[in-house]
Amino acid sequence: MKHNFGAGPCILPQEVFKQASQGVLNFNDTGLSILEISHRAPEFVAVMEEAIALVKELLKVPTGYSVIFLQGGASLQFAMVAYNLLAEGKKASYIDSGVWAKKAIAEAKLFGQADVVASSKDKNYSYIPKNYTVAADSSYLHFTSNNTIFGTEFHQFPDKKNHLVCDMSSDIFSKEINVADFDLIYAGAQKNIGPAGATLVIVKDEILGKTGRTIPSMLDYEKQIAAESMYNTPPVFSVYAAMLNLRWLKAKGGVAAIEKENITKADALYKEIDRNPLFKGTTATEDRSRMSVCFVMENPDLEKPFLKFAEEKGCIGIKGHRSVGGFRASLYNALPITSVHVLVEAMQEFEEKNK
Amino acid sequence: MKHNFGAGPCILPQEVFKQASQGVLNFNDTGLSILEISHRAPEFVAVMEEAIALVKELLKVPTGYSVIFLQGGASLQFAMVAYNLLAEGKKASYIDSGVWAKKAIAEAKLFGQADVVASSKDKNYSYIPKNYTVAADSSYLHFTSNNTIFGTEFHQFPDKKNHLVCDMSSDIFSKEINVADFDLIYAGAQKNIGPAGATLVIVKDEILGKTGRTIPSMLDYEKQIAAESMYNTPPVFSVYAAMLNLRWLKAKGGVAAIEKENITKADALYKEIDRNPLFKGTTATEDRSRMSVCFVMENPDLEKPFLKFAEEKGCIGIKGHRSVGGFRASLYNALPITSVHVLVEAMQEFEEKNK
Repeated sequence: MKHNFGAGPCILPQEVFKQASQGVLNFNDTGLSILEISHRAPEFVAVMEEAIALVKELLKVPTGYSVIFLQGGASLQFAMVAYNLLAEGKKASYIDSGVWAKKAIAEAKLFGQADVVASSKDKNYSYIPKNYTVAADSSYLHFTSNNTIFGTEFHQFPDKKNHLVCDMSSDIFSKEINVADFDLIYAGAQKNIGPAGATLVIVKDEILGKTGRTIPSMLDYEKQIAAESMYNTPPVFSVYAAMLNLRWLKAKGGVAAIEKENITKADALYKEIDRNPLFKGTTATEDRSRMSVCFVMENPDLEKPFLKFAEEKGCIGIKGHRSVGGFRASLYNALPITSVHVLVEAMQEFEEKNK
Repeated sequence: MKHNFGAGPCILPQEVFKQASQGVLNFNDTGLSILEISHRAPEFVAVMEEAIALVKELLKVPTGYSVIFLQGGASLQFAMVAYNLLAEGKKASYIDSGVWAKKAIAEAKLFGQADVVASSKDKNYSYIPKNYTVAADSSYLHFTSNNTIFGTEFHQFPDKKNHLVCDMSSDIFSKEINVADFDLIYAGAQKNIGPAGATLVIVKDEILGKTGRTIPSMLDYEKQIAAESMYNTPPVFSVYAAMLNLRWLKAKGGVAAIEKENITKADALYKEIDRNPLFKGTTATEDRSRMSVCFVMENPDLEKPFLKFAEEKGCIGIKGHRSVGGFRASLYNALPITSVHVLVEAMQEFEEKNK
């Protein structure tokens, strides 16, 4: 039994793997693979429509917002956001909370002025910046809601009056949010949505089409919305598996229910990190991520042995990113609480062995 | 038994469906799904490397060319080609051979001057334009090697001195080509490469980096090449299934062997279209596509009944595109010759019934 704490592409529910695997052989008893049917076939159009409807239902997306599935991951959104929303001669504001935020800033600068209004770089991104001023004429305020590499998460979002644009790749669907507080939310699929290859965008319609810029069709939110996520052939399998995963989430009780589980999982692991004298967290306590739990050992020489020990217990994917070192346990929606218990027990056993 | 003549996403080999399905449950006996492993894990890096090595081997890609897998399909390439190759104030040449060529032209115009040097629009794109002049100072000549909607195909490529850029989405890997004759080849995966969600680009390295333009990272061929198709999380499953499909092609004897089969399949169907008094082809004989066989009926009133008759025999996906009407049978690599025989027999039986 493996306990997959990988940062992404990451664990999805076992039943989603089974259903997706079956769909590759024989989709909905059509006698055809999901991989060989036209994206314009009614059977696949129904998949796309259900995926979008589930996003709207699970996140209570209000009217006036469009939901689309694209390609290219969050990294392409870094450019698309500015291409679509930042007019020449205008400025946007960015919060620099880590590697992904920095990449978003770099791409935005190709299209207009991207001001960094706050940064936690001074302490290796170990906290969420909180005191900052956003210019009144800023087109939007961009932030990364969860920072996978550094293990911090916005538990309170910035003021909505700043026109929030959020890279929610690693914590969307993990907790309840109020979509109406945002101008635009985007997320690469490969954490809590589905397999890699699809990208979710939720956008307030009224903010689009205002830059005066002609945008390449594939990068133009308005064209993608008009084409109902089918401007060209969509990533059929990724959308299908995402739909299955969102069905699973709905059957679990939706976002409110999974949020409770996610709190329980994160609390259990942080509690052990704080209790166990061998380990310590790397981030400001109030900004600790529920999805990406980063920790190191008081004695760095024990890190390799613990990694091996944990792997022997089936805990995989816990090696920390090189920017932080130590460990990172990703606790995405599909990771069962039992996996967290196995990791906590491994930490306790390791403590006993190293007394 | 279904015979899938769909235009794409299309049939892939049955063994690829089986292997891909298994990989979703348990990839390479790792106990993990291909969907839940990190794209940086050695197991997936090996998949990407094998996929790229198979492209190079099967198409005999010469040194000095890079092979990358991207996202966004050919439609994103329409913009990327011009973004990367067409400097401001320069011009490029385009052959207008149908819907996809026209879309490529429209996107290129956002980045520079895109001259249409030849078009077959005058006869509803039923032939491949052949006599045209390309300006000596044209940056490249873009063409669509196979036109899925209209059923035409370049059986002889334009003069390589024009710096050829080719959208080879629907006939790549169907016949031998000389990659050295091209500056750049691109192809959406969802015909002869693999499932939708991946895009193949083969590019001569020396043509890159010459526009003086700063290109968004995800759209910059040089950055994607430097990152070995992993600038960000790639479409893991699509690349995996493409790799399995290219393995299948290699085991079949490679491109030369499949080309022979493809000629046999297309010949069998065109022979029946020409012989059977109920049917007629829609394109110039010398430009007939081997991949996309378009035909209509002498009596249009019989088209609906024949469509139904063929479907009862298991032949699906043969309805023609609305721009041409009638029928389109796509004969991609994975379609067995037996499926063509079933369709030919259906045409013959229908002839008997309608004497």
